[in-house]
Amino acid sequence: KKKKKIAIIGGDGIGPSVIAEAKLLLELYQERAGLPIDLWELDLGADRYLRDGTTFPNQIQIAIQRECSAVLLGALGDPRVPNLEHARDILFGMRFGYDLYANVRPVRALSDRLVPLKGRTAKDIDFVVFRENTEGIYVGMGGQFKRGTPDEVAINEDVNTRKGVERIIRAAFDYARANGRTRVTMADKSNAMRHAHELWLRVFHEVRAQYPEIQSNHVYVDALCLYVIQDPGQFQVIVTNNLFGDIVTDLGAALQGGLGMAASANVHASDPARVALFEPVHGSAPPLAGKDIANPFAAMLTAGLLLAHLGWPEEERRIERWVSQALDQGMCTVDVGGTLGTRAAGAWVREQIAAELGPP
Amino acid sequence: KKKKKIAIIGGDGIGPSVIAEAKLLLELYQERAGLPIDLWELDLGADRYLRDGTTFPNQIQIAIQRECSAVLLGALGDPRVPNLEHARDILFGMRFGYDLYANVRPVRALSDRLVPLKGRTAKDIDFVVFRENTEGIYVGMGGQFKRGTPDEVAINEDVNTRKGVERIIRAAFDYARANGRTRVTMADKSNAMRHAHELWLRVFHEVRAQYPEIQSNHVYVDALCLYVIQDPGQFQVIVTNNLFGDIVTDLGAALQGGLGMAASANVHASDPARVALFEPVHGSAPPLAGKDIANPFAAMLTAGLLLAHLGWPEEERRIERWVSQALDQGMCTVDVGGTLGTRAAGAWVREQIAAELGPP
Ligand SMILES: CC(C)[C@H](C(=O)O)[C@@H](O)C(=O)O
Ligand SMILES: CC(C)[C@H](C(=O)O)[C@@H](O)C(=O)O
Repeated sequence: KKKKKIAIIGGDGIGPSVIAEAKLLLELYQERAGLPIDLWELDLGADRYLRDGTTFPNQIQIAIQRECSAVLLGALGDPRVPNLEHARDILFGMRFGYDLYANVRPVRALSDRLVPLKGRTAKDIDFVVFRENTEGIYVGMGGQFKRGTPDEVAINEDVNTRKGVERIIRAAFDYARANGRTRVTMADKSNAMRHAHELWLRVFHEVRAQYPEIQSNHVYVDALCLYVIQDPGQFQVIVTNNLFGDIVTDLGAALQGGLGMAASANVHASDPARVALFEPVHGSAPPLAGKDIANPFAAMLTAGLLLAHLGWPEEERRIERWVSQALDQGMCTVDVGGTLGTRAAGAWVREQIAAELGPP
Repeated sequence: KKKKKIAIIGGDGIGPSVIAEAKLLLELYQERAGLPIDLWELDLGADRYLRDGTTFPNQIQIAIQRECSAVLLGALGDPRVPNLEHARDILFGMRFGYDLYANVRPVRALSDRLVPLKGRTAKDIDFVVFRENTEGIYVGMGGQFKRGTPDEVAINEDVNTRKGVERIIRAAFDYARANGRTRVTMADKSNAMRHAHELWLRVFHEVRAQYPEIQSNHVYVDALCLYVIQDPGQFQVIVTNNLFGDIVTDLGAALQGGLGMAASANVHASDPARVALFEPVHGSAPPLAGKDIANPFAAMLTAGLLLAHLGWPEEERRIERWVSQALDQGMCTVDVGGTLGTRAAGAWVREQIAAELGPP
């Protein structure tokens, strides 16, 4: 039986320490549950870049694509590297290079205590954002004209293709259908972006007609951000473009208890056999690095998404359940109201899972 | 003494009924306080458009610019007019046509009861957003290529000029300086929009150096939306581009008690003598029209911004104080927890102000 290979990149700042906890969790699954996975740790990030100028070597990019089922990435970004050069090479190198067009970000609160909204509990915060991940403003098209003069003009283009828009909207509807969700919401700014988002709105209407059993609605992104606070329970699946997905998932993280709780999967949704990228939504948070205080739960929940993607969805639920328990019992880091360090919080969750899995 | 002329456009949906309350408030100030203002009601909006095809006639646009100190606009948008054609002509016709580069949106909660965040009170929600109002994605540049085919590409360009970026950032710092605010936050997405927002970041650093007494910081827009929920009290003045300003002020409205509470001013900040546009942030909400249920407070607070702009800042504070009282005493519409209709809520606030102003 061929093992599934998982590339592991700790990255910068708090990345290595939260990924260490997620890696120990994956190793636990190898040992106790006999999951046929193979972990391959890669040395990429600011240290490597500063040492030898390497960001994301071509042979690594190709080897991952050929050999791996998944990549687990911590975070990238380091004050010693201006402009996030290496971070973009690696992150966009995978998102774009592997054509991982769906950035799937569950916004689920795992403890009532973490929900910042009056009168709401964890059960009110339960939706999934399908963020387009290969187009939009992220393609980098544009430029600067007369740079440095009083007449300077600087442009970035929001580029959308029929193919790109259709596949992410379809992915959201397919997800709803496969997961018993009954409503899909598409968010754009078609009242201002009349070329780019007229396409989004048109394709949305075409695709929704093919999923008659799923309710769907359209909102402008500004209204979306308002409704997510006023009535989060109305959302089940949200599909939107790259930039708005970036924004609304950070807003979603606020409803989950902060970035320490937000997980994400980057997948080529129509072909799950392709390599996929899993990363917590949080950044590298350099000031917190090396202090054993970063929250490991986002990384561990991200490992759960990874396991679900590889065919073990019950393990995602198990991890989520024990993280939820940890939060309720205060066995967690300070950002989510606990007193434990990164390692102790990670260990507590793993111990419960180990006990539940039983001996190898 | 020359009177200041104010053009009044009710517009569509709930626009006319909320603007009626704001207009009665301005008339009260004419009569009781002898404010030298002159109200000029204009028939523009969906009805007019459907009647004679007119959106924003050139001679009206010019007359406003020549004769008026301010425009008070309700809301535009009607299901009978597809694609908001007339709305854009009028709204963007004024924002762009009069070069009203600063869309100033106070995010201030006027009642503890309306703050949706656990552990926060009204005093924690008190910042002002300076939204760039003449550039960015709103310029409409771009197009669609191979429209309707599987190869379609649709683009909108986010266009920024040195002049445009500098003047809005400067307006935010000038506002902070003039209003005793000690901190300015600039939000962009320069880690992804490397042409357009590299300009924003560069100009921000140049301008902040000229205001050494003001603290300032830079955040990415995704993080901004998270922080606005997690710790709104850290913000005093936020400056950002057109699109992000649109998004963050709707999010801000959620913290104020909804769109029924959010006011805005569109000004050419460096020359207050130019005509300025005042509009509640909310839309026309067609389903609510004609039912006497829309919240008039956003429009009345907007009239307050207008009076402050014309030189009577104490009247802005007076209106705000009485709206706050109305909320605390439940003399308000259902969206903000009251039982009154549009007219009764408006009348209550006006009566208190009339009593305070005393006889003419
Ligand atoms: C680091 C940054 C470029 C990235 C993005 O905008 O996609 C991050 O915010 C994210 O959400 O993964
Ligand atoms: C109606 C729409 C075009 C407008 C905008 O995006 O500017 C509105 O949302 C606003 O905030 O005034």
